[in-house]
Amino acid sequence: MLDKYTIGLDYGTNSCRALIVALSNGDELASSVFNYPTGEAGVIVDDAKPNLARQNPADYVQGLEITITEAIKKAKEARINFDPKDIIGIGVDTTGSSPLPVDSEGLPLCFKDEFKDNKAAYVWLWKDHTGYEEAAEITEKASEIRPQYLAKIGGVYSSEWLWSKLWKCQKSDNDVFKAAHSFIEICDWIPAHLCGELKPEKIKRSVCAAGHKAMFSTEWDGLPDKEFLAELSPELADLRDRLFSEAYPAEEKLGNLSAEWAEKLGLSTDVAVAVGAFDAHMGAVGAGVNTGTLVKILGTSTCDIMVSPNNETLADIPGVCGVVDGSVKGGYYGIEAGQSAVGDIFLWFVNNLVPDKYGADNDEKFKNLGEAADKMKPGETGLLALDWNNGNRTILVDVRLAGMLLGQTLHTNAHEIYKALVEATAFGALAIIDRIEENGVKIDEVVNCGGLAIKNSMLMQIYADITNKPMKVSRSEQTPALGAAIFGAVAAGKEMGGYTDVESAQEQMTGTNKVYIPIPENVEVYKKLYKLYRQLHDGFGIKNKNTSMFNVMKELLDIRDEVRKG
Amino acid sequence: MLDKYTIGLDYGTNSCRALIVALSNGDELASSVFNYPTGEAGVIVDDAKPNLARQNPADYVQGLEITITEAIKKAKEARINFDPKDIIGIGVDTTGSSPLPVDSEGLPLCFKDEFKDNKAAYVWLWKDHTGYEEAAEITEKASEIRPQYLAKIGGVYSSEWLWSKLWKCQKSDNDVFKAAHSFIEICDWIPAHLCGELKPEKIKRSVCAAGHKAMFSTEWDGLPDKEFLAELSPELADLRDRLFSEAYPAEEKLGNLSAEWAEKLGLSTDVAVAVGAFDAHMGAVGAGVNTGTLVKILGTSTCDIMVSPNNETLADIPGVCGVVDGSVKGGYYGIEAGQSAVGDIFLWFVNNLVPDKYGADNDEKFKNLGEAADKMKPGETGLLALDWNNGNRTILVDVRLAGMLLGQTLHTNAHEIYKALVEATAFGALAIIDRIEENGVKIDEVVNCGGLAIKNSMLMQIYADITNKPMKVSRSEQTPALGAAIFGAVAAGKEMGGYTDVESAQEQMTGTNKVYIPIPENVEVYKKLYKLYRQLHDGFGIKNKNTSMFNVMKELLDIRDEVRKG
Repeated sequence: MLDKYTIGLDYGTNSCRALIVALSNGDELASSVFNYPTGEAGVIVDDAKPNLARQNPADYVQGLEITITEAIKKAKEARINFDPKDIIGIGVDTTGSSPLPVDSEGLPLCFKDEFKDNKAAYVWLWKDHTGYEEAAEITEKASEIRPQYLAKIGGVYSSEWLWSKLWKCQKSDNDVFKAAHSFIEICDWIPAHLCGELKPEKIKRSVCAAGHKAMFSTEWDGLPDKEFLAELSPELADLRDRLFSEAYPAEEKLGNLSAEWAEKLGLSTDVAVAVGAFDAHMGAVGAGVNTGTLVKILGTSTCDIMVSPNNETLADIPGVCGVVDGSVKGGYYGIEAGQSAVGDIFLWFVNNLVPDKYGADNDEKFKNLGEAADKMKPGETGLLALDWNNGNRTILVDVRLAGMLLGQTLHTNAHEIYKALVEATAFGALAIIDRIEENGVKIDEVVNCGGLAIKNSMLMQIYADITNKPMKVSRSEQTPALGAAIFGAVAAGKEMGGYTDVESAQEQMTGTNKVYIPIPENVEVYKKLYKLYRQLHDGFGIKNKNTSMFNVMKELLDIRDEVRKG
Repeated sequence: MLDKYTIGLDYGTNSCRALIVALSNGDELASSVFNYPTGEAGVIVDDAKPNLARQNPADYVQGLEITITEAIKKAKEARINFDPKDIIGIGVDTTGSSPLPVDSEGLPLCFKDEFKDNKAAYVWLWKDHTGYEEAAEITEKASEIRPQYLAKIGGVYSSEWLWSKLWKCQKSDNDVFKAAHSFIEICDWIPAHLCGELKPEKIKRSVCAAGHKAMFSTEWDGLPDKEFLAELSPELADLRDRLFSEAYPAEEKLGNLSAEWAEKLGLSTDVAVAVGAFDAHMGAVGAGVNTGTLVKILGTSTCDIMVSPNNETLADIPGVCGVVDGSVKGGYYGIEAGQSAVGDIFLWFVNNLVPDKYGADNDEKFKNLGEAADKMKPGETGLLALDWNNGNRTILVDVRLAGMLLGQTLHTNAHEIYKALVEATAFGALAIIDRIEENGVKIDEVVNCGGLAIKNSMLMQIYADITNKPMKVSRSEQTPALGAAIFGAVAAGKEMGGYTDVESAQEQMTGTNKVYIPIPENVEVYKKLYKLYRQLHDGFGIKNKNTSMFNVMKELLDIRDEVRKG
């Protein structure tokens, strides 16, 4: 039997990627990356508004054509009998919540002359935190009159999420808000673009985006009710009717590739396009997520994804961003947690605070920092950091927190601080694992994916030592794109040569290839350090917690001295 | 009348300096610097013992000859009628407590073959903290049975001080301790060397060193009594008899220049050598210290010196290192406080955490960091730091504290952190000022000296804004050496053409030349930041203080946002 193929399209923060995958065994034939041309590394920023982060949807369309074309060309070189006509499905994952204001035809407002200079008319990227005051008010109002809305999303509504952004837009950019017929998540807008039907009413919306970011649930009437929204703003309540009332898992077929795109890309109009979802959720599928597996996607920020069968009761998990039926795959609750910055913290450090003696460029600096840090034992730096340079997304759910470094002497050097920053992100990861397990979801294995998991063995060993769990690494280096490709295969379905369900696709197409085992003596030291981390975490992160900080530095020094003594 | 001259010898941590000064007006004719050749920048360190810092007394002797010879040569070039025979006195200031183990002839043990490889036989430099456990035990024992000993030194005995070092030596290097007939502070040993009489029993010891570092006081029988010392260790009690029982202010003449040195240096044997004292204390005199003047010596660490007339009662000041009759000048209590690291923190930062884009060398980096930091308004960085990279010397008196930086985001850059570090040292300075004023010693003016005061106008303005006091800068760039020269002039006395007392010498020989005035809007912002600094300071520094830290980051962000709004 000749193999069939699918395309996974992965829209990240700075670039997008197309990946062509063989259905039989998950072989990744070819991929192509496109860096968004607009703004700073693809992000539109504003010096006067440090929380603002926008994106140009034109970059997505351009990236789509360039990466698929290029990937097909490479696939032909890689496999002699490869025929683009054997591509049967396309799946799309994106960042989110990243809503885009559109007119009644689904056209982005920023494509119109009158709005092209207005940043509010562009995509409000996931990491746009301008709506932090609105987020706090939504949390307050919901905890007063709709506590059930908060229970599903960890108890605190985030400034990264849909309603915070829509409300902020309504308040601070009312001209855009008024002109917008609707707002569409880019995980819905991009697949709709492939199908050639952008009318907001006609697009099958992602339950992943809806459930995790828009307080959408079948336990109530979909989106938050009008009465609640009117309490925030009557204009928001009006908008509700122009958003959506149904939401779908990504196994669902959105439609077929439009004739226009089929021609442009050299593909068939039989190609099935799956409903979109977020990168982390599709990435978890690409990493083989199943009951008992925690998938960690380690990138600029981190997403932690689990699933739990939806025929068993699952209590709400406080401080964990979301529990949404079908958000990862049908038949399971998707559980989403995460850290607001991980790779971003290391990149910030190397860009701003690492002298050139560590290397001529960032790659060299990372390499040398890592090697030097790896030579130090746990506790030896005497340092402790909080991983909050971009706030805290899970447990505290608070963007108005900041980083902290403690324990530096006159001898502390850059690689020690680098190690402390890596450890801080691992402590943050452990805090999430603890919280999930305390709430009755057992974690049997951790599968890691993303660039850091693949490239940074020092980091992976520290994660194993700090969490005291083996860290497996996903076989694929592009798990979000692979996950998207899997959904393309399922959307295409059996009769087209695809799969009937996600599990059977995962079985053939995913796997792990490396594992880091905890080192017992490191585990012991890190247990002590984690206690101190939690003291700082709770002392600085929890209101009304009267924690004395006095012992922190003492114990750090004691641990360091003990380690040095050997 | 032809002018007379004195030589001030200033022994710092990394180098020593000779300064030739005209008695009539304080004109500094010539100076010469000698970098100690032994160890790392003159300090013997030990990789396995991070708290160890020793020094080679041979460097002092070598430096003495080289710098005086060179300075005389330069003085001849600078002033046509300069004649070395018109030099009438020499004063010596050094770091301390920096004791040196010697034999019964005053010969350093490290000069002997059997001890030349033993670091304990060298000078135990002021910043040697190996005796931190001993310091804690001394504090505990004294607070139990001799509380009066502690009252004079701020309530806590430091690991930098004499008894901590002697006891540590006795415990960890007993062969050296046993072989030592006595221990001599280098501020006593160097002038004694100039006079050619090193026998421990014959050296007039400095009341500055004795009172501030050895718990010596005329309110009891000089050094701590034998019974107390025996409680620490019988060997320490035995040593007491071989130390000293009298101590003198630096106006006192120690002796005349020895024939050997006179010949070597081309000076007369009539030259009077003054009793030694510490650099900060003589520096304060060189900066014009008087009732109501706080002199800040801003260097790698900081000393804050005041005087208070000894015919008025002065209550003990808790947490301030010392109040000693005559330690700055006769007739006054000398009050000494200080910060364990100031310039050292900036140097650490530039050496370890500043990328080369700020400059090719440290000078350029400091220049560019300073200029960029100067452009930011108070509060704009969103950062707050604790100035404890080398512990806290005054108020908390605790070397087992460490640095802290808080508030960093993904956008924080090196010059923002540099500014936060400068601010942290200024907050530390204000904490000391507050403590002294709360205890009834009024501060009418602040005179700053040392390299930072002269070169770093950004820092001086921040100090003015944070302390809300005008910051004057001493006219002399070498106030410790100038102070030492003043004591040389007083030791020589009227009949030799010198001065009868310190005040009349100061009147002629010292002055200020620059003043930084507080900027009211900066003062207001810094008042808020100082409150947060104190919250961290007390929360992390005071045991049993149950302080919630929650509001710290919030308020920092609020202040930052407010400032950015304008």
